[in-house]
Amino acid sequence: MIRIPVEQVQDVLAAVFIRIGVAPERAALSARLFVETTRDGVYSHGLNRVPRFLATIRSGSVNVRAQAERIAAHGALERWDGKKGVGNLNAYAAMDRAIAMAREHGLGCVALANTNHWMRGGTYGWQAADAGVIGICWTNTLPNLPPWGATDPRIGNNPLIVAVPRPAGAVVLDMAMSQFSYGALASYRERGELLPVDGGFDREGRLTRDPAAIEGSLRPLPIGFWKGSGLSVLLDATAALLSGGRATHELGLDPLQEVGISQVFLAFDPAVFGPLGDTVDRIVASLGVRYPGEQVVRIRAENLAKGLPVDEALWEELRKEAGR
Amino acid sequence: MIRIPVEQVQDVLAAVFIRIGVAPERAALSARLFVETTRDGVYSHGLNRVPRFLATIRSGSVNVRAQAERIAAHGALERWDGKKGVGNLNAYAAMDRAIAMAREHGLGCVALANTNHWMRGGTYGWQAADAGVIGICWTNTLPNLPPWGATDPRIGNNPLIVAVPRPAGAVVLDMAMSQFSYGALASYRERGELLPVDGGFDREGRLTRDPAAIEGSLRPLPIGFWKGSGLSVLLDATAALLSGGRATHELGLDPLQEVGISQVFLAFDPAVFGPLGDTVDRIVASLGVRYPGEQVVRIRAENLAKGLPVDEALWEELRKEAGR
Repeated sequence: MIRIPVEQVQDVLAAVFIRIGVAPERAALSARLFVETTRDGVYSHGLNRVPRFLATIRSGSVNVRAQAERIAAHGALERWDGKKGVGNLNAYAAMDRAIAMAREHGLGCVALANTNHWMRGGTYGWQAADAGVIGICWTNTLPNLPPWGATDPRIGNNPLIVAVPRPAGAVVLDMAMSQFSYGALASYRERGELLPVDGGFDREGRLTRDPAAIEGSLRPLPIGFWKGSGLSVLLDATAALLSGGRATHELGLDPLQEVGISQVFLAFDPAVFGPLGDTVDRIVASLGVRYPGEQVVRIRAENLAKGLPVDEALWEELRKEAGR
Repeated sequence: MIRIPVEQVQDVLAAVFIRIGVAPERAALSARLFVETTRDGVYSHGLNRVPRFLATIRSGSVNVRAQAERIAAHGALERWDGKKGVGNLNAYAAMDRAIAMAREHGLGCVALANTNHWMRGGTYGWQAADAGVIGICWTNTLPNLPPWGATDPRIGNNPLIVAVPRPAGAVVLDMAMSQFSYGALASYRERGELLPVDGGFDREGRLTRDPAAIEGSLRPLPIGFWKGSGLSVLLDATAALLSGGRATHELGLDPLQEVGISQVFLAFDPAVFGPLGDTVDRIVASLGVRYPGEQVVRIRAENLAKGLPVDEALWEELRKEAGR
């Protein structure tokens, strides 16, 4: 692991994206969203994810020239077609539009069909909160989780993000419907650790904290068992209904082919009724424990000061891709 | 347990509410919402809840003469003041208005402050779905759950409801942020059963399936551990920010004094873009297991055919309250 200044990573990554065909301004934005994800400590969906993202472009799953476009509008509700373009650019454009509608109508919703993996969902929560509004968004995914009562994957882990603005630092929840992602299971296994709580079933159908047993059974747990399973179904149904796009059961099982997914972006502007006051500060103070997003502030400061932590081999690969 | 025809229960309950000061039309609606809750099998929040509801009226916590009123509006976002009126009437009026805004603006949101317990949250999900729109609503509650990392209750179990319309029967998720309610814990204990999964901590801080141990420690689990804890915080923050009303930490610990809570009602009308088609049917068919709300259809049919199951002593009490 080496540390590289943020600006340098940003430059190299933008160059990589330009070389693969993304228009310069859009390449810079997409690179920034990847860089900020690593900066904020969400390493699984930042720079480490770029090689897989490039593979989806080369395989034709992601069309770097496509731009999301509004195809229908009714008041504060809009349908956009993501045209299988770059996932983080599509999602950013959708939340940007939802924020603009929130300023006008008090709230706004963009339902986005035919898009691709948005990488870190929290990105769009921070985007809303940094603009001073409440952001709520969710996405469906390929089937990677058995619903409660079944043993094979038929529902998505469908991340849900809820973000509220606060002068001292936004409160941002970014959570998938699985208790542990496959990435998290692999990390625990590699460290030789048990999960802190039950994370799924083993092949015999027993609840277990052994990450390898869950990787073997393909039966991770939904959060709250039947509850997270149900919420996953409803997030999928609302995303498909509002966007007119595809539901989880219509998506393939190959992560490189996870294209044409459906997402919902909601923004609310409570400031239309007056200053927000210290409501959120007082909630945070009442908890006595960490609030969602609190760790990000510390990690962000550290990574900005010391440079982004990057795997050395990955950094060489990215520089080669950039022609540097 | 006896069975009483739905119409007879409705008549008696409406008479009870009129006698305690609710205006006749409003009494009929409030009675209907209680009756439908029992009809749908949610016995904890239907007729069984009426004595406690009457107690909150007699104690002055609930003002039966107050009607929720819009106090601010901006496009598709409205703030209402519940004036500490009857919780289910306030919530019904708020979702009704959100539905009307959804028809006009594509979506609509009513944020309701100073209201009281809405009884079954699913009521307002069914209300939206029966009107052909997507309904999402949530409420904060008094502090009844320790946040993840703490041992005393500081967050609410903040029920979240998501409902989508479907000709063959709506899909309605109605879930609190605790894995088991105190009512559910008591039921398991009375039956001498262990919980099917860990439901909280015992006094020594160990995860347990023993309902009595959790009742003793006052440490039920949030769904998904840190995840449900975080979602509870965000539901509270968004409800307080949007409504301008109170957050969980500002509410007392006495259930009879759980007044002045904050709620959010959202409705989306995807039909503004054309017919809904069979999207939800196909999602339901793909699951291979029960969908959220499926049990309701069966229980509802049985209770409509046989009459509502009512505790005999409770029925006598209600008839006495009604002067019958």
